Order: sequence, then structure tokens, then C-alpha cells
Amino acid sequence: MGLMKAAGLKVRIDSAGNIIGRRGGSEDLPAIMFGSHIDSVPGGGNYDGDVGVIGAIEVAQILNENNVTTRHPLEVVVFSDEEGGLVGSRAMTGHLSDSALDVLSHSGKTIREGIREIGGNPENLDTSRYLPGDLAAFIELHIEQGAVLDDEGIDIGVVEGIVGINWWDVTIDGVANHAGTTPMNKRNDAMLAAAELTLAVNRIITSQPGAQVGTVGRIRAEPGAPNVIPGKVVMSLEIRDLSEEKIRMLFKRIETEAVEIAKKYGTPISFAHIDVDAVPAPTDNQMRAIITAVAETLGLSYKLMPSGAGHDAQDMARIAPTGMIFVPSVGGISHSPAEFTHPRDMANGADVLLHTVLRIDAGM
Amino acid sequence: MGLMKAAGLKVRIDSAGNIIGRRGGSEDLPAIMFGSHIDSVPGGGNYDGDVGVIGAIEVAQILNENNVTTRHPLEVVVFSDEEGGLVGSRAMTGHLSDSALDVLSHSGKTIREGIREIGGNPENLDTSRYLPGDLAAFIELHIEQGAVLDDEGIDIGVVEGIVGINWWDVTIDGVANHAGTTPMNKRNDAMLAAAELTLAVNRIITSQPGAQVGTVGRIRAEPGAPNVIPGKVVMSLEIRDLSEEKIRMLFKRIETEAVEIAKKYGTPISFAHIDVDAVPAPTDNQMRAIITAVAETLGLSYKLMPSGAGHDAQDMARIAPTGMIFVPSVGGISHSPAEFTHPRDMANGADVLLHTVLRIDAGM
Repeated sequence: MGLMKAAGLKVRIDSAGNIIGRRGGSEDLPAIMFGSHIDSVPGGGNYDGDVGVIGAIEVAQILNENNVTTRHPLEVVVFSDEEGGLVGSRAMTGHLSDSALDVLSHSGKTIREGIREIGGNPENLDTSRYLPGDLAAFIELHIEQGAVLDDEGIDIGVVEGIVGINWWDVTIDGVANHAGTTPMNKRNDAMLAAAELTLAVNRIITSQPGAQVGTVGRIRAEPGAPNVIPGKVVMSLEIRDLSEEKIRMLFKRIETEAVEIAKKYGTPISFAHIDVDAVPAPTDNQMRAIITAVAETLGLSYKLMPSGAGHDAQDMARIAPTGMIFVPSVGGISHSPAEFTHPRDMANGADVLLHTVLRIDAGM
Repeated sequence: MGLMKAAGLKVRIDSAGNIIGRRGGSEDLPAIMFGSHIDSVPGGGNYDGDVGVIGAIEVAQILNENNVTTRHPLEVVVFSDEEGGLVGSRAMTGHLSDSALDVLSHSGKTIREGIREIGGNPENLDTSRYLPGDLAAFIELHIEQGAVLDDEGIDIGVVEGIVGINWWDVTIDGVANHAGTTPMNKRNDAMLAAAELTLAVNRIITSQPGAQVGTVGRIRAEPGAPNVIPGKVVMSLEIRDLSEEKIRMLFKRIETEAVEIAKKYGTPISFAHIDVDAVPAPTDNQMRAIITAVAETLGLSYKLMPSGAGHDAQDMARIAPTGMIFVPSVGGISHSPAEFTHPRDMANGADVLLHTVLRIDAGM
């Protein structure tokens, strides 16, 4: 908030705990909002979110230093608790549920208590809300958190959208039995079926062109003893893609193959869909075009790409034309103290953000 | 102990908590010991162990009723805490370690405290010890705990030996990474390598003729979140067989295949051998021959087979010619309240035990 004030912004904390620094415009127009978040996962690094916030403040600073007055008011935003479930942007776009407020977070406090602690008022979230039309645009600058830009030596990622995330709990029902007395051909081993399904997921996801990803990240075998044939395995299945239709198609193929695996091992397999409220959020065509044009003008290499990670931009896309700018993460490392982005790339990102805001302001 | 006394046995509890009921013989010969255990796993059934103890007491009863005096003294034994790690038989054969005494059991007491509680004296285990030559033979009647006899409709299993058990902790080191931002071809997914290795274990174990079994019963993925590519998987590997050499050969093949899998996924795989002190324990040739002859004489069908489960007989085999008699478990179900053995089969088992003891006594 000190940096924002030093950049000439008028700073407030809204009822959801978002920090908003406003700079007036010369005309009575909806604001152009840009920013990101400054909270971090436990054991995280110093670039995820922060680069976008510092970049946004730098834009305000540069406009001041150059005595530029924009037509639109500008709002630099620091969203609250992005890592805990896009709390600030969900509240701002009017879809933070009551049950989400009661979630107990890593800190030992509920989201509701946390919002109060940082100066918000969780009983009065409606006052934070922006409706469609309230903003001329929303732009987020962020580190990629993947290795695509770094690997390919590209300066700027023009985000096509934030992928939809689908989660399932996959339950495989075998027959728990003595691992010593049960011959190999008399087993209904849930672990073997789980192993075959895990490989099938990887095969099916990679059988199609595109940037879709599929992951089995969690697994539990019951009873879970070295000397007992697993009678039950529960594992997670996550599929992400920009197209909900493609996610459905891939899942359908996995489900079909699961029927065969279940038959082979005599272990019924069921899928329970978990609602993670993360439908694909494509960015705005015009915003993409502006960011692309800016990168070209600045002589920066760029690439259209999906964001595999969730971002506040996906909520903001519900109420405003939204664009998102990526800068490279070294080695694709994120959510780790080893997270790093070169100063040159952060400067490039802030530069693209500045000129994007100016072009939006100019109505180009 | 009441039933044992009613069967004319002179009953004592040794320092390891074993109950021993003795019946004198007509000559100055080492005793023939037979029996099993009456403790149970939590949530277990009423046949595992008990059938062998009740059968043994019945043998003593029958001898009394028929005024039979044997040449050898007979000892009916109820081993203490079989399920907790063959405690009674290990003490009796002199290889229950001090560290085993300090193991905290399911009851919340250490083995040492438990032994004291049931009337033993853990500080004085040497007095329970039998040395080679102290017994003429040891015979254990037990339910199969597998489905082989029940499936094939066979009355009696003549146990060839108790299989050796080898355990390994298998560690697969991948790279934990964001499941949304890491493309499929940039992953070092420990879960995929674990899945492929699990299927390889099953393929290698079943590629050879024989009764060997191999099981992956426990698995843990780290960090274990649906949205993070597993950076580490630790899983158990168990191989059982009557031949230690075969276990070594199978493990060698698994290890070789693991090298290929590690290379394919870029996930080093290491195996840590866990000492479970369960080397293969073949039964005595002569005892097998006697049990086989008895079954034939009684008109019972029989089958030579390994025991996939551990038994007190494997310890007793260190100090005495040991034989083991299996009766069918319905559906192979054991360590479950649904465990069941038909009365007819229990009677068959006791009958085989009786005539086996008599033939050993007669020196046949």
C-alpha cells in the first residue's frame, strides 16, 4: 500500500480484503483494472503474483513520472488470497459462496476470519462487487509457472485463456486378501487395476495433439499393508484444457477404457466428479490482439498459449474483457523457493502491460 | 487351560506365555509336541489357530478315552501371540530379540508387558527354550487361509514348507511439479513409473510356473495432491516362495526392469530390503511322508502345497522335525469374521493329527 501511495494511487481495501489503488481519468469512463496477487503458497517463491503487482504499480509510477493522464480511470488491484481459492476475485465478481468463507485455511483461520484480519468485512461482500460494464478491461501480468517460454526462449506469453480443471475421485473396488495365501490367478487386486488405469490416462491424454494435461497425483490403497492385496484404491484424476468439450471427450475415452480394465481384473471402477468451479476461461479476442500488437511493436518474441494454472483473471473474465500477459519462469519452477524470473523479463512484462493499458485507453 | 486339564493334561505357562499341556509317555524319550495358537488379529475370525489347538486337545482326549499310553510324552502347545510376530514360538526356539519385546502392540502394551500379563516372565525367556533334540517332532494343524483346497475340493493339505517372505521399500524419485503448467512431455512423473513397475512385478511373478506370489500392497505418492505431479512414490514389494533362490531370481528380474522404467520416465528407482526374518522353512520329509500316508489310510484326498502364510511351525522347524496339516478354508477367507471351516473338515484334520502323532510315536 505504501508503494501504491508513492505511485500516486488513492488506496482502499474493499470488503473482500482486496487492495485497490485508483488513479483518475480525464473522462467519465469505466476503469481499466490491472494487477495480480501478493499472497503465496506455503513454501512458495517471490515471483508468483508479485511480478504482476509490482509491474502494475510500476505502470502507475511511469505514468506519473511522464505526466500522462489517461482517459479512463486506472485501478491497480492486489487480490486477496489468490492461492486459497481466488478469494478476492471471486468476491469481486460475486461468486464467493458462503461455504467457501467457512473453509479452514492453512493459517488455522477460516477465510472469513482472514478477510476480517486484513481489513475486509466478510458480512458485506456485495460492496466489493463489480458488475459487467463496470470495468473497461482487466489485464493481469504473471509469471508463466511452466517451462514453455523458458524452454523456447520466448519473451512474452499471450494467454489464450485459463484452462478448465476437472477433478474426479476414482474408486477401484477389489478384494482385500492375504498376500501369502492367495494365488496370483485368484486375485482381484485393486492396485493392478489402478496401475493400468494410470498408464491409460497418460496414453489417452497424450494421444491427441494440443496442450491438454492429465494427472494422477494422489493415491491411497486399502488396507495399505505390504502383506495384504489391496481391496480398494482411491486415486485422483485431473484433466485440464481450454476446451470443456475436449476434456469431456478425453474423460469419455478414459471411462471406456476403465470398463475394460475393471473387467480384466474383476475390480469395478467408479468415477465421482468433484466440483472445483474451474470452467475454461478464454481471454478476450481484442485484448489478445492488443497484447500481441504491443509485443510486436516492442520487438519482443511472443507465443499464444493457454494458462495451465488458475488465475484471478479467470474470474475477472466473467465481468470484463480480460487479457493476460506471461513472462518466463526459469526452468518452469513455481510454488517453490527456487522460483525465479530474470529482471529483464519482468521489465519486458511491465512494458507490455504499460503499452497494453495505454492502447486500451486509446480505444485501439 | 480348562479343556486341557479336562483332557488329562498337566498344564503350565512357560516364561514366554505359551501354554503347554503335558501327557506322560511310557519311555524316556523326547516329547512329541503339537498345537497352534488361540490369539487372533483384530477383526479376525474363529478358526485361524483355534482349529489346531482344539484339534490337539481332542487328540489328547481321544487317547485318554481309549486308554492309550504313548511311548513318547506328548505336549499340546498354545503359542502366545502368534499374530503379533510368532512371539511364543520364537521365544521357545531362542530367537525372540530384545527389540521385538519392546514393540508396542495393538493393545497399547508392549510385547514384554503382554507376556507378563498372561502369566509369563519376559526377563527369563531362556527357561522356555527347547534345543534341537528336545522334541521328537512338532506337528501343527491349521486352516489353509487360502482357497486352494476349497476350490479343488481336497480334504487335506500336506504342507511342503512355509514360504520365505521378502519385503522391499521401493522409492521412485520424480520431479514434483504443477500439474497444470507442466506439459505432458516435460514431466518426470513418479506415479507413472510406479504404475509401470507395479504391472511389471505382476508380469514377472506370473511368468514362471510355481506357487510364488508377488504383491504391491502399500503406496504413497508425494506431495499427494490432485494438482501436483508426484515427485516421489514409495511403495512396498513383497515376494514369497518356498525357495529363497527363486525369490532372488524374481527380484533380480524386477530390478533389471526397474532400471528400464527409471530411464524411460527419468525417475530413479531404488529398492531397500526390509528384514522380516522370514526365510523359507521347509517341513521335514519324514513328517510329510507320515501325514501323506495317514491321509491315504483314512481315505482322505490330499495335496502337497506350500503355506503362503507364516506359522509357528516355521520357528519349530529350526529345532525339531516339523510337519503341518492344512484343512480347507471356505472361499479362502481368513483374518475376517467370515472365516469358516466345515466341522467335517475340522474332524478330518484332527483325525489326521491323531494318527500322525501315533505313527511318529510308533517310530514309523
